[in-house]
Amino acid sequence: ASYYFLIEADTFGELKVPVDKYYGAQTVRSTMNFKIGGPSERMPIQVIKAFGILKRAAAEVNKDYGLDPRLADAIVQAADEVAAGKLDDHFPLVVWQTGSGTQSNMNVNEVISNRAIEILGGKLGSKDPVHPNDHVNKSQSSNDTFPTAMHIAAAKEVHEVLLPGLQHLHDALHAKAVEFKDIIKIGRTHTQDAVPLSLGQEFGGYVQQVKYSIERVKTAMPRIYELAAGGTAVGTGLNTRIGFAEKVAATVASLTGLPFVTAPNKFEALAAHDALVELSGALNTVAVSMMKIANDIRFLGSGPRSGLGELCLPENEPGSSIMPGKVNPTQCEAMTMVAAQVMGNNVAVTIGGSNGHFELNVFKPMMIKNVLNSARLLGDASVSFTDNCVVGIEANIDRINKLMNESLMLVTALNPHIGYDKAAKIAKTAHKEGGNLKETAIKLGYLTAEEFDAWVKPHEMLGPK
Amino acid sequence: ASYYFLIEADTFGELKVPVDKYYGAQTVRSTMNFKIGGPSERMPIQVIKAFGILKRAAAEVNKDYGLDPRLADAIVQAADEVAAGKLDDHFPLVVWQTGSGTQSNMNVNEVISNRAIEILGGKLGSKDPVHPNDHVNKSQSSNDTFPTAMHIAAAKEVHEVLLPGLQHLHDALHAKAVEFKDIIKIGRTHTQDAVPLSLGQEFGGYVQQVKYSIERVKTAMPRIYELAAGGTAVGTGLNTRIGFAEKVAATVASLTGLPFVTAPNKFEALAAHDALVELSGALNTVAVSMMKIANDIRFLGSGPRSGLGELCLPENEPGSSIMPGKVNPTQCEAMTMVAAQVMGNNVAVTIGGSNGHFELNVFKPMMIKNVLNSARLLGDASVSFTDNCVVGIEANIDRINKLMNESLMLVTALNPHIGYDKAAKIAKTAHKEGGNLKETAIKLGYLTAEEFDAWVKPHEMLGPK
Amino acid sequence: ASYYFLIEADTFGELKVPVDKYYGAQTVRSTMNFKIGGPSERMPIQVIKAFGILKRAAAEVNKDYGLDPRLADAIVQAADEVAAGKLDDHFPLVVWQTGSGTQSNMNVNEVISNRAIEILGGKLGSKDPVHPNDHVNKSQSSNDTFPTAMHIAAAKEVHEVLLPGLQHLHDALHAKAVEFKDIIKIGRTHTQDAVPLSLGQEFGGYVQQVKYSIERVKTAMPRIYELAAGGTAVGTGLNTRIGFAEKVAATVASLTGLPFVTAPNKFEALAAHDALVELSGALNTVAVSMMKIANDIRFLGSGPRSGLGELCLPENEPGSSIMPGKVNPTQCEAMTMVAAQVMGNNVAVTIGGSNGHFELNVFKPMMIKNVLNSARLLGDASVSFTDNCVVGIEANIDRINKLMNESLMLVTALNPHIGYDKAAKIAKTAHKEGGNLKETAIKLGYLTAEEFDAWVKPHEMLGPK
Amino acid sequence: ASYYFLIEADTFGELKVPVDKYYGAQTVRSTMNFKIGGPSERMPIQVIKAFGILKRAAAEVNKDYGLDPRLADAIVQAADEVAAGKLDDHFPLVVWQTGSGTQSNMNVNEVISNRAIEILGGKLGSKDPVHPNDHVNKSQSSNDTFPTAMHIAAAKEVHEVLLPGLQHLHDALHAKAVEFKDIIKIGRTHTQDAVPLSLGQEFGGYVQQVKYSIERVKTAMPRIYELAAGGTAVGTGLNTRIGFAEKVAATVASLTGLPFVTAPNKFEALAAHDALVELSGALNTVAVSMMKIANDIRFLGSGPRSGLGELCLPENEPGSSIMPGKVNPTQCEAMTMVAAQVMGNNVAVTIGGSNGHFELNVFKPMMIKNVLNSARLLGDASVSFTDNCVVGIEANIDRINKLMNESLMLVTALNPHIGYDKAAKIAKTAHKEGGNLKETAIKLGYLTAEEFDAWVKPHEMLGPK
Repeated sequence: ASYYFLIEADTFGELKVPVDKYYGAQTVRSTMNFKIGGPSERMPIQVIKAFGILKRAAAEVNKDYGLDPRLADAIVQAADEVAAGKLDDHFPLVVWQTGSGTQSNMNVNEVISNRAIEILGGKLGSKDPVHPNDHVNKSQSSNDTFPTAMHIAAAKEVHEVLLPGLQHLHDALHAKAVEFKDIIKIGRTHTQDAVPLSLGQEFGGYVQQVKYSIERVKTAMPRIYELAAGGTAVGTGLNTRIGFAEKVAATVASLTGLPFVTAPNKFEALAAHDALVELSGALNTVAVSMMKIANDIRFLGSGPRSGLGELCLPENEPGSSIMPGKVNPTQCEAMTMVAAQVMGNNVAVTIGGSNGHFELNVFKPMMIKNVLNSARLLGDASVSFTDNCVVGIEANIDRINKLMNESLMLVTALNPHIGYDKAAKIAKTAHKEGGNLKETAIKLGYLTAEEFDAWVKPHEMLGPK
Repeated sequence: ASYYFLIEADTFGELKVPVDKYYGAQTVRSTMNFKIGGPSERMPIQVIKAFGILKRAAAEVNKDYGLDPRLADAIVQAADEVAAGKLDDHFPLVVWQTGSGTQSNMNVNEVISNRAIEILGGKLGSKDPVHPNDHVNKSQSSNDTFPTAMHIAAAKEVHEVLLPGLQHLHDALHAKAVEFKDIIKIGRTHTQDAVPLSLGQEFGGYVQQVKYSIERVKTAMPRIYELAAGGTAVGTGLNTRIGFAEKVAATVASLTGLPFVTAPNKFEALAAHDALVELSGALNTVAVSMMKIANDIRFLGSGPRSGLGELCLPENEPGSSIMPGKVNPTQCEAMTMVAAQVMGNNVAVTIGGSNGHFELNVFKPMMIKNVLNSARLLGDASVSFTDNCVVGIEANIDRINKLMNESLMLVTALNPHIGYDKAAKIAKTAHKEGGNLKETAIKLGYLTAEEFDAWVKPHEMLGPK
Repeated sequence: ASYYFLIEADTFGELKVPVDKYYGAQTVRSTMNFKIGGPSERMPIQVIKAFGILKRAAAEVNKDYGLDPRLADAIVQAADEVAAGKLDDHFPLVVWQTGSGTQSNMNVNEVISNRAIEILGGKLGSKDPVHPNDHVNKSQSSNDTFPTAMHIAAAKEVHEVLLPGLQHLHDALHAKAVEFKDIIKIGRTHTQDAVPLSLGQEFGGYVQQVKYSIERVKTAMPRIYELAAGGTAVGTGLNTRIGFAEKVAATVASLTGLPFVTAPNKFEALAAHDALVELSGALNTVAVSMMKIANDIRFLGSGPRSGLGELCLPENEPGSSIMPGKVNPTQCEAMTMVAAQVMGNNVAVTIGGSNGHFELNVFKPMMIKNVLNSARLLGDASVSFTDNCVVGIEANIDRINKLMNESLMLVTALNPHIGYDKAAKIAKTAHKEGGNLKETAIKLGYLTAEEFDAWVKPHEMLGPK
Repeated sequence: ASYYFLIEADTFGELKVPVDKYYGAQTVRSTMNFKIGGPSERMPIQVIKAFGILKRAAAEVNKDYGLDPRLADAIVQAADEVAAGKLDDHFPLVVWQTGSGTQSNMNVNEVISNRAIEILGGKLGSKDPVHPNDHVNKSQSSNDTFPTAMHIAAAKEVHEVLLPGLQHLHDALHAKAVEFKDIIKIGRTHTQDAVPLSLGQEFGGYVQQVKYSIERVKTAMPRIYELAAGGTAVGTGLNTRIGFAEKVAATVASLTGLPFVTAPNKFEALAAHDALVELSGALNTVAVSMMKIANDIRFLGSGPRSGLGELCLPENEPGSSIMPGKVNPTQCEAMTMVAAQVMGNNVAVTIGGSNGHFELNVFKPMMIKNVLNSARLLGDASVSFTDNCVVGIEANIDRINKLMNESLMLVTALNPHIGYDKAAKIAKTAHKEGGNLKETAIKLGYLTAEEFDAWVKPHEMLGPK
C-alpha cells in the first residue's frame, strides 16, 4: 500500500502525517513512541466522544468570553462531529501513553482544529485560522480536560448502557419471581437440603440484588457528575476566567441531559480519581451479585438427568453433536466471566488511583479504560443474559416436587405435634433406611397417614406465623 | 499446667469441656475440628459483642411473644455481659470454621445459656433452665443471626472507630490547609515542576479527599443497617412470629443508637452479602485516598538535604544512630501499609461475596473479619497519622521559596506582555545555561528588572481572573 | 492492676518501661506511636523467631571477626531463647509501624541485649556489657536484617507448615483416587451431564493439582533462600567485613537445615521484595487449586436427597437440630474461605511490593504478615481438610450408578454401530418422553436388548483405544 | 452498505451467513447471542493462530491414523493460513461467549472446513468433502482443543514478545549500570537521605529485578508446555486413539520450536487452568518490578529545578507549550499504567481459575485474554521504555555531586576517628545551623580540614572492607 503524507513539524522536528487524517504531528509522534498493545488497546472511543462534548462546551463558553464567533462556531461544528462518532478513524492513540492523557487531548485538539480549518476553507496543518492550542484548547489544560472527559464518558456509559441493562435484567427477574411465586421447592444451605421456600422467593432474592445494584451505581454518581474543567494545569484555574468552570459544567449538563456540576475542589479533581475508584467499587459489587445469580441459575438448571434440574434454561445453540438435551448454560458463563473481569478491573483501577503524586494522577487513561470496560460489559451482559436466558427460564415442576417431597427436612413440621425427639427418630430412620418420612412415621407408630398429611404442609412453611 | 474439665455430650459423643469456661460441647468440637491459624485468627471480638446485643434484643422480643420472663431476663443479663466484653475469654473459635458462622452462634448460645443458668442458680452444662437452642436461639437460626451480628459489628466499628478517625484526620488537615493558605509553592505534575499553587490549596485537596471518604462510607451504610434477623433458616422466617423481625431490628436500633431496620428481603440478606462488599468497596476507596495523601506527605517531607524538603515532619523516634535530622516518615509508612492491606482485604471480601450458593453464602466469617479489619485499621491509622504526624507538620518556608523562585515555569506570566516566543526563549536559555529567569530576560534585552518584578508575581497565579 | 516500671531514656527523653519485660525504650515508644489494630495485629511471632536465628548467626560470625567471645556467647544464648519462643511475651509491637521493621529489629536487639546482660549478671536497661546496637546489631542494619528475617520466617513456614500440609492432602487424595479407580460415574462439563469417567480419574485431577501446588511453591523458593544480611543500610555492606554476608548465610543455613545463601545483589534485596511477591503468587495459585477441589467435593457431596449426592462426606459436628443426615461440608467451607483470604493477601503483597522507593521498600511488615498468614492458613487448612474430610469420604455407589445409568450421554457409544442420526433420535426421544435409552432404542426398533447391552459399556468409555 | 448472504441451517434453524466469510452458522449464531463489548473484545488473534497450529497438527496425526490424505492435506493448508494470520477477518467472536470457548473452536472448524472445501473445489457451506466436526475437529473436543490453543498462544506470546522485551530492557539497564559505576550518589531509604552508593549499584538493583523477572517467567513455563490435546470431552480421551495425544504434542512442538509435551493428567488440564494462574502470577511479579523501576526513574529524573534531578531523561515529545525543560516521564507513566493493568488482570485470572466446576473450567476465554494481554503489554512496554527512555538516560553529575556533598550522612565516616558522640554533634550542629559538615567540624575544633578530606571519602563507603 502506498500512502501520501503531509510533512508537519513540531518543536522536535519534522514528521510525516497521513494526508487523509485530521490529526497532526503530536498524534503521530505518540504513535511512534508508544507501540504498546496494538489497535485493541486504543483509547476508548467513549472518551473521544466525551472530549467532543467538552470541546464544544468550552468553545461556546469561550465565545461568551470573547473568542471570535466564527472560530468558535467552526469548533462547535467539528466538536459535534467528534461527539457524534463521525471522525472515529482519526484517533489512533493507545491507552498506554502519557498518564495524563495529554496526547489524546492533543489528538482531539488537532482533529478539531483541522476539521474546523477545513470548514472555514483553510489549509490542513496550517493551524490557521483555528489553532489546536490557542483556540480549541483555550482556557483548558490536559490536566483538567482529560478528567472532565473521563467523567462525561463514565456517566454516559452508566446511563446509556449499564443502568438500562440492569433495569432490563431486574424486570425480567421480577417477572419470573411473580410467575414462580406458588412453586414450592426445597431450599439449600451449605449446598445441602434445607427447609422449603417458593421459587418466587428464591428469584426474589435475585431481584433484590439487582435492585440494589442499580442503587449502588446511582449512589456513586454524584461525585462522577463533578467536572474538573476550569482547573487547568494544577487546579488553580490559571489562565481561565472567573465563571468559566461553572459555565462549562452547565453547558455539558445541558448537552448531555445529565446533572454535571463544576467540581468544588479542582486540586482533588486532578490529583486524585477517587470518584472513579468509588464507581469501580460499585461495579465490583454489581459483579459480585451477577456472579451469584448466574452461578445459582446454572446449578439449578444443571442436568438434564444427573444434576439438580429444577430449572429448564433456554437452548440457544447446538450443544454437543452427540448429547441431545444438553443445554450448556452459556449465558451464565459469559456473565460470570464478565464478573471476574470486572473484579480484576477494579483492582487495576484501585492501584492506579492510589498512585497519584502531588498535583496530578498519571494513571488516567488506564483508569477510565477499565471503568468503561466494566460498565459496558456488565450492561451488555445483563441484556444478553436477560434476553437469551432469563426470559426463557421455565420451572421443571415435576422435578421440583420430587426433590421437595423426598426431602427429610419436612420433618420439621412435626416438632410441635410429636416433639423433637420423635421427629428426629423418624428422620434418622428414614435417612438410614432410604425410606420416606410418611411411611417411616407410620411404621414407627408415631402418627397416622391422615395426621401426617394434615401436619406436613410445605406451603405453610414459607413465612412467619 | 493442669486443667479440670466437665464431661459433656452432644449427639456425636462425649467431650471434655474446661470447667472454668461457659462454652459447651459444640464449641469444644469446633476447636478440635478447625485447628487453623491459631489465636490471632479468632473470630473478631466485635462479632461476639454484636451477638450479645442481638441475643439481648431477641430475648426481649421473645418475652413479648411469651418466653418465660425469668429466663428472658437472665438471658438479657448474660447477653449484656457478652456485649460489654466481660466474657471475651469464652470465645475461642477461629474464623476458619463453618462458613455460616454456626459454630460461633452456638458458642454464643452456649455461653449465654450457661451464664444465665448460673445467674438463675442452675448447674453449668445442664441446659436447664436455659437451653442454648430452645431459649437463647429462640426464633433464630445461625443463618439469620450471623448476618445480623455481622451488620451490627460493621456498623458499630464504622461509627465508633472509622468515622471518628477520618473526621479527626479531616479536621487536622483542614487546620493545616488554613495555616498554609498564604504559602506559595511550586506545583508538580508528572512529578515534574509546574505552575505554582499555595500549600494551603495542596492540603485542601487532601481535605477534600478525606471529606469524600467520610461521605463514601456513609453512603454505604443504609444497606448495612438492614438486619437479617427474622429470616431464620433460608429467609422465609419459618418458626418465627409475624412482627418478630421488625421488633428485633427496632430493639437493636434502640440498644445501639444506630438506625437499624429489618431487611426488606431476607432471602437476599442470607444468600448474599453484597452490602459488606459495598462497604468494603468504600473502604477500598478510602484506602486509595490515604495512600495518595501519605505518599505525598513523605515525598514533600523528604530530605532533609537531598530530597524535596518542603515539609518538616515531626520526629517521633530516634532515627538512625548516625544521621541526625533523618526523619523517617514512619506514620506515612504505617498508613500506606494499612492502605495496601485494605485493598487486599477488599479482594478477599469480593471473592467471598461472589461465591454464595442458593439460599446461603458460606464465606461469612471471612468476610466480616476483613471488613472489620479494614475499618479498624483505617480508623486507628487515621488517628495515629493525625496525632503523630499531621498536626506537627511545618512548612519549610525557605526551601519552598527557593524551589519556587528557581523554577522556570514562572515564565508563563510573561506571555501576555512579551509574547510566547520571547518567553520561551528566556526559559530555554535559562535552562540551558543554568541561569535564572530574571537575569536571563534582562540579558536577552526583552525587559527591565522593574518590568520583570512587576509582571512575575506568583501570588497572582493561584486562580482564574 | 498496678505495674512497676523502669525509667529509661533515649535521645527523645524519658520513658517508662515495664520492669518485667526485656524490651527497652525504643519498643515502648513504638507502642505509644502506633496504636493501630490491637494485639491481633502483632508482628508475626515467626518473624521474631527468625530474628532469633539471625542474631545468633550474626553473633557467631562477629565472634569470628573479633567480637568479645563472652558477649557473643551470651548473645547466642539469648538469641536461641528468642528463636525457641521462650520470650514471646516480650514482643508487643504491631505490624503497622515503620515500614522497614526497624522498631521490631530494635525490639529484638533490646530483648536480646537485656537478656544477655542478665545472663552475664549485669543490670537490665544499662546496655552494659551488651549494647543493643553495638553488639547485638553489630554489622547489621534494620534494612538488611528485617528482609533476612522475612526470608527465614517464610522459608520455615513453607517447610514446616505449608509443604507438609499439602503433602498430607496429596497423599490422602491419592489414596482416594486409588480406592475409587473402578467406580464409573457421570462426568459433568458446564455443570451439565457429560460422558463418563471414573471417580478415581476425577480425584486424580485433584491429586495432580496438589502435586503441582507443591511444585509451584518449591519453584519459588530459590529466591527466598537468598538472604540480604550483609547489605546493611542501602545494600553496599558499609560497616561490614568482607565475607560477613556469606558466613551469616551459611550459619543460618546450618541452623535451619535450609539451603540459604547470601543474596547476589543486596540492592535488590533491600529495595524490592519481589521474591515474596513471587512466593505469594505461588500461594495464590495453590489457593485457586484448593477452591476448585473443595468446591467440587461439596457439590458432589450435596444432598442427602436433593443434591448430587455422589459422595458421602464425614459428619463432624451436629448439623441442624432438626434435620438428621444434613452434613454441612464445613471443612470445604473453611478451605474455600482460606482460599479467598489468600487471594486477597496476594493483592496486598503485590501492592506493597510495587511501592518501594529508591534503596528501600517500606512495606516490609505488611508483606511478610500476609505471606506468613497465607502459608499458615493453607497448610493448616490442608491438614484439617484432609483429616476431617478427605480421609472419610465415601462413594455413594448406588447414587453414582443411578445417575450414570439414567444419563442420556451413554448414547455416544452407539454411534459406530447405528450411526449418529439414529443415536441422536434415540436420545432426543428419550429426553422428550423421559424414557431410558435402552427402552427407547428398542421401541424405535434400532437394536435389540442384547445389542444395547453389548454396545453400551461405560467402562469402555474411559480412555483412548 | 448492502451485503450478500448464504442461508445456512443448523439444528436450530436457518441463519444468514455473509457470503464473503468462511465461517458458518454456529459462528453467526454466537454473534447473535453474545452482543457483549463490541469489536475490541474479540477473542485474541493469538488464540486463533494457535488453533491454526493445533488443527494442522491434529490433521497430520489423524492422517497417520487413517484420515483421507487429500482431506488432511487441505486441512493442513487451510490451518496454516489461519496460523499465518491470513484469515483474521473471519473470526468475529468475542471473548464473552461460552466459557469453554466452544464457539471459537467451531469458528475455527468452520473456517478451515470451508477454506479446505474451497481448496478442493467444493461448495462453501456444504460441509463436503471436509466436515468441520468430523474432519477438522476429528479426535478433538472443544474441551481439550481450547486449553491446548490457550497454552500454545501463551507460550508463543511469552517467547516472541515478553521475554525478548524483558531481555532488551535488561541489557539496556545493565549497560547503564556499567556506564554509571563510578558515579557516587546519595542513597535514600524511607525516601530520606542515607549513606551513599554508586549510581551503577542503584541501576544494578534494577538489572537484578529484570534478570529475576525473566527467570520467574521461565520457571512458570514447564506447566504451560503441557497440552490438553487428546483428553477430548472430559479428559478420558474417549474417541481418540492411543498415541494421539503424544503425537499431537510432538507435532506442535516441532511446528513451534517450543518444548510442548502432552499433559500427564488430562482431567486436571481441562478442569483447572492453574498453569495460567501460575504464569499470571509470574507476570504479576514482573509488573511489581516494573512499577518499582519506573517509579524510581521518574522520581530520580524529577525537576528540572525543583525535584531530585539526578537523572536527565530523554525528551520525546513537546512538553507543555509554556515550560521548556519540562520533561514528562511519559514512558515511565505508560509502564506503570501497564503494571497496574497486569496486577488487575492477575486478579481476574485468579478468580476465573478458582471457579471451575467438576470436569471443566468455563472461564477459559477470559483467562487467556488476560494472560495474553499482560504478556503483550509487559513485553511491548519494556521495549518502548527501553528505546524511548532507558537508553537515553544521562546522569546529572553536578546535581548528584551537590546532593551528595551536602548530605549530613557522610559524617558516618568520622565515627572510627573521633567517635560517635563528636560525629553526632557535628551533624546535629550542621543540621540546625544549615552548615556543611566540614566547616562545622572545623569550627567545633574536632579536626582539621586536611583530616576531614582524608577521612570523609564517599567512594570508600560503597562496600564491606
